[in-house]
Order: sequence, then structure tokens, then C-alpha cells
Amino acid sequence: PYLVPNRNQSICYPSKHSSNTGYFPTRKPTSSMAEIDVAVQLLLKLKTDYKHLTGQDYKAGCPPPENVVNQDNGAATDGIDEEDNVDPWNVSTSNAKGVDYDKLIVRFGSSKIETELVDRIEKVTGQKPHRFLRRGIFFSHRDMHQVLDAYEKNKSFYLYTGRGPSSEAMHVGHLIPFIFTKWLQDVFDIPLVIQLTDDEKYLWKDLAIEECHRFAVENAKDIIACGFDVNKTFIFSDFDYMGSSPEFYRNVVKIQKHVTYNQVKGIFGFTDSDCIGKISFPAIQAAPSFSNSFPQIFGGRKDVQCLIPCAIDQDPYFRMTRDVAPRIGYPKPALLHSSFFPALQGAQTKMSASDANSSIFLTDTPKQIKNKINKHAFSGGKDTIEEHRKFGGNPDVDVSFMYLTFFLDDDEQLEKIKQDYSSGALLTGELKKILIETLQPMIAQHQERRKQVTEETVKQFMTPRPLNFKL
Amino acid sequence: PYLVPNRNQSICYPSKHSSNTGYFPTRKPTSSMAEIDVAVQLLLKLKTDYKHLTGQDYKAGCPPPENVVNQDNGAATDGIDEEDNVDPWNVSTSNAKGVDYDKLIVRFGSSKIETELVDRIEKVTGQKPHRFLRRGIFFSHRDMHQVLDAYEKNKSFYLYTGRGPSSEAMHVGHLIPFIFTKWLQDVFDIPLVIQLTDDEKYLWKDLAIEECHRFAVENAKDIIACGFDVNKTFIFSDFDYMGSSPEFYRNVVKIQKHVTYNQVKGIFGFTDSDCIGKISFPAIQAAPSFSNSFPQIFGGRKDVQCLIPCAIDQDPYFRMTRDVAPRIGYPKPALLHSSFFPALQGAQTKMSASDANSSIFLTDTPKQIKNKINKHAFSGGKDTIEEHRKFGGNPDVDVSFMYLTFFLDDDEQLEKIKQDYSSGALLTGELKKILIETLQPMIAQHQERRKQVTEETVKQFMTPRPLNFKL
Repeated sequence: PYLVPNRNQSICYPSKHSSNTGYFPTRKPTSSMAEIDVAVQLLLKLKTDYKHLTGQDYKAGCPPPENVVNQDNGAATDGIDEEDNVDPWNVSTSNAKGVDYDKLIVRFGSSKIETELVDRIEKVTGQKPHRFLRRGIFFSHRDMHQVLDAYEKNKSFYLYTGRGPSSEAMHVGHLIPFIFTKWLQDVFDIPLVIQLTDDEKYLWKDLAIEECHRFAVENAKDIIACGFDVNKTFIFSDFDYMGSSPEFYRNVVKIQKHVTYNQVKGIFGFTDSDCIGKISFPAIQAAPSFSNSFPQIFGGRKDVQCLIPCAIDQDPYFRMTRDVAPRIGYPKPALLHSSFFPALQGAQTKMSASDANSSIFLTDTPKQIKNKINKHAFSGGKDTIEEHRKFGGNPDVDVSFMYLTFFLDDDEQLEKIKQDYSSGALLTGELKKILIETLQPMIAQHQERRKQVTEETVKQFMTPRPLNFKL
Repeated sequence: PYLVPNRNQSICYPSKHSSNTGYFPTRKPTSSMAEIDVAVQLLLKLKTDYKHLTGQDYKAGCPPPENVVNQDNGAATDGIDEEDNVDPWNVSTSNAKGVDYDKLIVRFGSSKIETELVDRIEKVTGQKPHRFLRRGIFFSHRDMHQVLDAYEKNKSFYLYTGRGPSSEAMHVGHLIPFIFTKWLQDVFDIPLVIQLTDDEKYLWKDLAIEECHRFAVENAKDIIACGFDVNKTFIFSDFDYMGSSPEFYRNVVKIQKHVTYNQVKGIFGFTDSDCIGKISFPAIQAAPSFSNSFPQIFGGRKDVQCLIPCAIDQDPYFRMTRDVAPRIGYPKPALLHSSFFPALQGAQTKMSASDANSSIFLTDTPKQIKNKINKHAFSGGKDTIEEHRKFGGNPDVDVSFMYLTFFLDDDEQLEKIKQDYSSGALLTGELKKILIETLQPMIAQHQERRKQVTEETVKQFMTPRPLNFKL
């Protein structure tokens, strides 16, 4: 499967001393421009594929040694034997059921959240596991057993999650990590830090610093509306917190000293044309994994274990973090990974905050919710009522059903819906109606809670300060 | 002079599908291991040379276009046709008179400080020019005429200089930019910011963050002892200031967004094995060139012109800064470049703070000063008194004489010493005695002033606060 360039086909640029000048292939001096264009396009594509495969720039005549494709390195192998492509900026799959998460676990080297772990969380917390755990929406982890071992010995931990504030508009999918993190905070009774990477968004998007910072504050309101305890939660914008915490910056530089360009190139696929801000940014997302980045909370302690609930596409940052941690004398953060929330149009892609029809937004009216679901939610039903009654629908590719697995808490009701839809007893329109009636009050309640979030409340959450907890 | 690889000589690694495995060249299957080793060494050397010349990784069969060697880019051409090597981490020359500064001006694209500019500074300030200007020790500039044009129209500017605190020990050479900057502050009556890049030293050296920060504070005491006005001077450690100024961090990220890895590779010679901290650091040295990095001083104004007095080896940072400035809406900083202070052993090298005998340290006793000069100062005199009387000494390579050009303010006396030494009337021992008698009281006075610098004074200088000046 590796695209090893065939030396006989390689196209060489003319040397400086050649009589032929310019950038075009010299092999066929009689080529028409169109033929040349095709050849150049092919060359460029091959170079791109080569870089994608090996993480290195293509050098003519010098194929990489066998071991160049690093097995530990998700980015380098993404999209090769796999049909799925998952990194912090791109998620895509050609499978209507969505990304193959079992393959992702193998590729990323994480562990599957087995029933045994879910049962253990229930035992340790004394609480019914959240539906995201019961239904495998959080499906992968790193070191969660270790976190529970310590917790059972009265050694507590803290939670860290975050969001890149690329726009004011958040959709229901953005809430998944926050809904789950709030549950974790409640059942374990532990402190939480939430990073808003407004600096990242400034570096990656065509946005002004002020815009990114404003998005961070607006997004904080939606996050606060999820019900976090102000006495146990610190929300911060990178632009603000970097400039108000020498300890945070020290950890950032410490991490930056222990990660090379080669490493971030391999992990994140950066190229030499990327700006130096992007190249050094991963250290900024890594730093909150270490408790002494928050002296106001942990009083300078550097040994408090961190648990990071996040979507699996963020794992590259934390693979890097876990690699660095022991070398700078800090504990490795543990992780809980969620699967992706599907776009209304189907599970092949992650939703986009810039496409209003790709998901249900937190600002949508009941009418918008109804129209979007009826019009855009990809259906696993049959083309005609007759066929549907006869053969049944396919809940595995049906977006309305997928959304219900995220938001309908009643397991029995969900199971009945699944059976009725599969059998054909439940029609697509009826399924969509159930989803509409689930989401309308949920979003309305969110909007009500968000309205009650004052500037004063935001300021409280975003002020570095001690939190109320026992370690 | 460009090393264009000859395609016939290129050595190719075997492809993955070749029956031959491993990393060795396949061209001569009968080669002995020794021959192979030689060939591999040659290949590696050629690749290094190629990268040094072009700033790009070597790709077999694909020589760079003609314009790849960037004329504006000092690092890429350093050490090729030239005998001098000058970048922020290395300065070397094979010439006993020191680096050829005229060539450096051409290479870096700066302007020579002509008599006309020195006269103009005298006219504008109404003060006799500092001996560093009179004697060409500050020999190169960028946009200094523009700064004076604006100053004459009552548009003021601010000064920015700095130091990398790699140890507690500072030598007299380290004082050059500070002595001159104090003079500029006095004659122009303007604010000054002094950056101590403790983060840089942590990234480049095998030192702990705490050590680098302590060196910054210790070095600040020596800097303060130069006599800066606390009401017009802000001294900061990067580790501290980054964590206390959101505006500084915003400018750092703004710069980091507008500089690519390719650019810093070309300017500073970074490689893919360098840590991401080094790669992004240049933005941190660039940021103080913009007045809104200091809102406590300039009240958010981003248009106050900056003038940077520094040694010429720091110019790469500010070439980069000047390139970025217009793209982010800021004025380009102006510069005044000094030549290097020679080591006692001769002008071929820059001094090293880690070699106690390479210079006069600010902590040396009168006896140490005397012994070091008598024992280590490279002499331009003749081997015997008889020869010296007959042929005279050579002040151009004599380190004692060079030091006097830095520290003896009386032009007539200096000229007489030069003539007497050249004629043979003045012996090496006598010349050294003059230097000893110049440095002993100077260092003693510095030590006395440093003793009076209390922790409270340091704290005052290093606290972000308004300064006293009119723009």
C-alpha cells in the first residue's frame, strides 16, 4: 500500500547548469502544455500522498526506509489503509455509520472502554453511569483504571477540557464533552479547568485577536449554561490567562523545550510553510494537563492527576503531552475519548459551525429545529411507506436515531424506538417527531439558562482564584 | 560557488522493494565498508553544505532555482565566501583585527554610521557624541535618520535593548550596549525597556527555569548599576512579564502568525531537530519592538517608534521584526549596531562568560584585573624591547589598545597612546598599565554602585508601571 515512487517515472527539474530553464519536466520536450499540466498535477498529488504517508517531504530517488511510517503516530497513517481521517482539524470517513472507532483505538494506541470499566465507575461513584458511557459514546480511554485506583485510595484528581472558539455559534455537538464533564464533576466532586484556545483560532483562522477573544467569552456563556459549579470550575481564555499566570507560561516553555519540530510534524502534519505560532501551539494545549499551571487552584502542587474528557480528534495533543510528562517530572494526564457527533446530513463528516444546516444550533428556535430535522436529517428509512413497513429502516445510519442516542436518556424507550424503526413499525416522520420533541425543550432550557448568565457570572468563572474542593 | 550536486555522483538509498536492504549505497555492491563510510560521510557533508547554502533540505536531482540563496538573509550565506560567521549564537573570524564590519553591513543590508550621522546626532541633541559613536564602535544602523527627522518634529521614540541571562557573571563587554543606551536615554530624554530573555536561555542551555530567572534578576542589578533612571526605565524578565501582560502575549502570537518555519530556518539556521520553543522564540525577542506591548507605559499606543541599540549579532531578530512590522500594522524598529568587544586573547572571537580568563568580569578585584591584563591581553607589540623600539607595535591587533578605545574617553590621550605605541615609544607593559589604571577604578565604581542596588530597587525597575516622559 505504500506509494513508493518508481524511479523510472520520476520527473526531475532541470539543473541550474542545464540549457533548459524553468520548472517544467524535461523528459518530453515535445509535450503539449496540457500533457505537462497533467504530469505536474500527478507529481504534486504523488508528493502530497507521499508526505501524508511518511510525514516527510518527498526527495526524488530516495525512498524512505521501511520504518519511516511510525505506527504510534496517528497522523502519519491516517487515510492510508483506513477510510477514516482523524486529526484535530479534519475528520472524515466514507462510511455512513461514521468513523470506525475500533480501528481508531488500535491506531491511536488507546484502550476501549469495556463494560467492566463502566461498571467500575458506577461502583466507585455510586451513581448510574451517564448515557454517554452506557452507550459507548465515550468509547476510548487512557489510564482511567489508574485514576480510579488512586481515587479509591482517597487520592483525587481534576478535570480539564476545552474548546476552540472559532465562532459565536455553538451547536448541540459542541455540548457533548461539557455535558459529560459536568456529570464527571458532579459524581467525583472535583475541580475542573476549561481552556478556550482563542490563540489557536487566531493562528488557524482568518480572524482578528479581538474577535477570537470575544468568541471565547460568548462560548463561555454557553458552557456555563451547562450547569457547572462556579466554586469548582475555572474557565480561561489563553490570551487572558497566559498574560496573567507566570506559572502557566513556565509550563508552556518547559513543554516547548522538550518537543522538537520533527515530532509535531509527525503528530500534527505541520509543514515548513506553517507559521511558527502553529508549530509551538501544541504546548499551550498541553500545559493545562499539569496541575502547577494553576497555582491559585492547586497551590503549586505539580502532582495532581489530570483527567481529560474530549473528542478523539484531540488525542494527538495529549499523546504528545503524555510523551513529555515524565521527562519534565509531571504525571501523565488520563483521557476519556468521545466519538463524533454526526452532522444532520450523515455520519461521514464532523459538523461545521459555519454551515447553519449541518446541525442544531444552541440559538435555534423550536421552528428552526423542526424544519432542520425534517428537511436535513439523513434518514435510514426506505423510499416509500410500503417498502419501509415491509423491510424496516436502518437506525445505524439514521441521523435522527443517532441524535436520540445522545440526548434521550431513557434506555428502554430508546431500545423500543430502535426495534420499531428496524421492524418498520416506526416511520421516519414519526422518528423525527420524537427527536424534535426531545430537542425543542432541551434547547429552550439551555437558552433560558444562558440568558441568566450575566457578565458578572462570566467574570467570576474566568477569574483565576482558589476553588472549593478536597484533594 | 554554489555546490550544485552532480546527478551522476548521487548516492541513492535502496527502495523498499529492492532486494538490497539497509541504509548503505547500492551503486557499488563490491565496495568495502571503509569505502562506503567515506562515501556516506561525503554525502552527509554535501547535504549539510547544501542546506547551509540554500536554507533548504537537499533533494536529489532537484537543484534549487537561481534565486534560492536569499541575499537579505545573513545566516544562509555566513561563512561561505566570507571568513566571518555572525549570528546570535556564534561569532567567529580568522582575522586578528576582528570581524570585517564593512562586509557585514553589505551582507546584512544595513547602513554605515557615517560622520554625517554622528554630526547630526550632535546637532539634534546638543551633546558631544558618545565615544562609541565618535570611534565607530556603534558602526551600523537602520532608519536612524528617520528617527531623527521625527524627533526634530517633536515626535519622540523609545529605546529597547536586552540581554540573555546565561550566568550570574557579566563582563565589561556586556556593558557596551547598556553604557551606550544610558547615554541615549540621557541625551534624548526618552523611556527605555530592557528585556532579559531568561526563557531563551532556558531553551538553549542546560539550565533550570529557576536558575535562568535568578540570573535575570542578578544581571538586572549590574544593568541598574550603569545608572539608568528608574522613572524612565522598565526592566523585565520574559518569564515574569509574559505572565503579567496579556498585551505582550498578544503581540507575540501576532508575530508568530506572520512568520513561517521556513523563514526562521533561513534566518536563524534552525533545523527540524530543534525544539518548538527555539523555533517560536524569535517572536518573543521581536515583541518589545512594538509600543503596545507595554500598555502601562504607552497607554495602548501602537505607533511609538522604537530604537534598538544592540550588538550586530542580534540583527537577525530585528530583520525578521522589520519584515513583519508593516504586515501587522506597526512601525519598523530602527537600530544602532555595535561591533563586538574582543576577548583578552584577541579579536578573533567573542568573549565567553564561561571562561574567566577571556575577559574582565564585573566582579574582578583590582589584582585580578591587573593579572589578567598582564598575563592574557593579546599584544600587538614586538618580541623584544629592542625590536619594539625600532619597529613599533601594532595597535590594530593589540587587545589592550582596543579596550582603551572602548573605555578611555579622552580622544587626544587615546590618539597619543596610539602614536606612541605605533612608533615604539610606548612599550606593551606601559600600555597595559594604562589600561589597568583605567579599568580598576571603573570596575570598582561599578561594584560600589551595584552594592547600593537593593532588592527594593530591583523590584521597582522590574514592576510594570507608567514611566515619566513626554512623547
